[in-house]
Amino acid sequence: MPRRTPRSAERRLEILQSAAAAFRRRGYHGASVEEIARALKMTKGNLYYYFRDKQDILFGCHEYSLGVALELLERVEAEPLPPDERLRRLIAGFVHLIIDELHGTGLTLELEALPRPLWQKVVAKRDRFDRGLRKILQDGMDQGLFVPGDPKLLAFAIMGALNWISRWYDPRGEAHSDDIAASFADYLVAGLRTG
Amino acid sequence: MPRRTPRSAERRLEILQSAAAAFRRRGYHGASVEEIARALKMTKGNLYYYFRDKQDILFGCHEYSLGVALELLERVEAEPLPPDERLRRLIAGFVHLIIDELHGTGLTLELEALPRPLWQKVVAKRDRFDRGLRKILQDGMDQGLFVPGDPKLLAFAIMGALNWISRWYDPRGEAHSDDIAASFADYLVAGLRTG
Repeated sequence: MPRRTPRSAERRLEILQSAAAAFRRRGYHGASVEEIARALKMTKGNLYYYFRDKQDILFGCHEYSLGVALELLERVEAEPLPPDERLRRLIAGFVHLIIDELHGTGLTLELEALPRPLWQKVVAKRDRFDRGLRKILQDGMDQGLFVPGDPKLLAFAIMGALNWISRWYDPRGEAHSDDIAASFADYLVAGLRTG
Repeated sequence: MPRRTPRSAERRLEILQSAAAAFRRRGYHGASVEEIARALKMTKGNLYYYFRDKQDILFGCHEYSLGVALELLERVEAEPLPPDERLRRLIAGFVHLIIDELHGTGLTLELEALPRPLWQKVVAKRDRFDRGLRKILQDGMDQGLFVPGDPKLLAFAIMGALNWISRWYDPRGEAHSDDIAASFADYLVAGLRTG
């Protein structure tokens, strides 16, 4: 399977990162496959070796981003920790993931342009992540660590704060991912604590 | 000035709301003036009576949204209240503004497509809002009401949680704007409090 050698997987990821940047900048409909290829000094033909079409690239962005987000969630869920510490790790890990790994890939992109079956696949993964986050919040409330509240609304607030990072983060700016991770984890966990 | 009678201002706002919905759904480049007009049962020619072109509509979305956001900020700043209460009102007011007034208009749309001079106008207003929010956070820290932190990062977290609402809010859903406003204000202020 020549398409999935490690080198090829790396190249696929480069394409997804370049595409996500182009989609964010000019919107899915505004960005062309040509400009995604050009930014990587590839020909359009070469890019089509990795992805069927623009839709396939958009789906790849979502799949990849949600894949790493779910890996993070599963790592956090596997650790024998109380809910507040779990939430801290999930938030801090997500910040690192957005900044250091994804460069904003996928998570804030629109789903609209995907055909129904692909859209459903993406939404199923996103729902899995959302359920995991809500469960941590609910567990914290049940154990009296967190004040009572609506886990769904609180999860939206947390995901908004996190996903928004790709809109303002500037790699040339003062704030590094460690500072942002610590600051967001402190703030977003503190707002839930009892006492 | 027939263009600015109250009726005409209402019509302009309807166009901006329809356009913002279309831009969110299909991206700025993906949405056409035709579909914005069609959603309002207007002709394209009629719409051009209110806006010069698609760019002018996008600029109008930003101008309008930031205008109402700045009015809210100025109302909050004018009240003789401590920083924590100010922040509560700003957050709750912003939730109502997004849900009940703007229907998500503008605030999360990309700026990219605007030519430099218009872009600068929008960014100047956005900066004014950001400075106002950071000042409230800084005042709260100076007065010992809020734990020390980086007002810039905290303001980004708050604005992310708020702006994200237009991505998940469903008018047919269970959560009403009052619940969301109270829940977000409680959570996002509690995370800052000392002791």
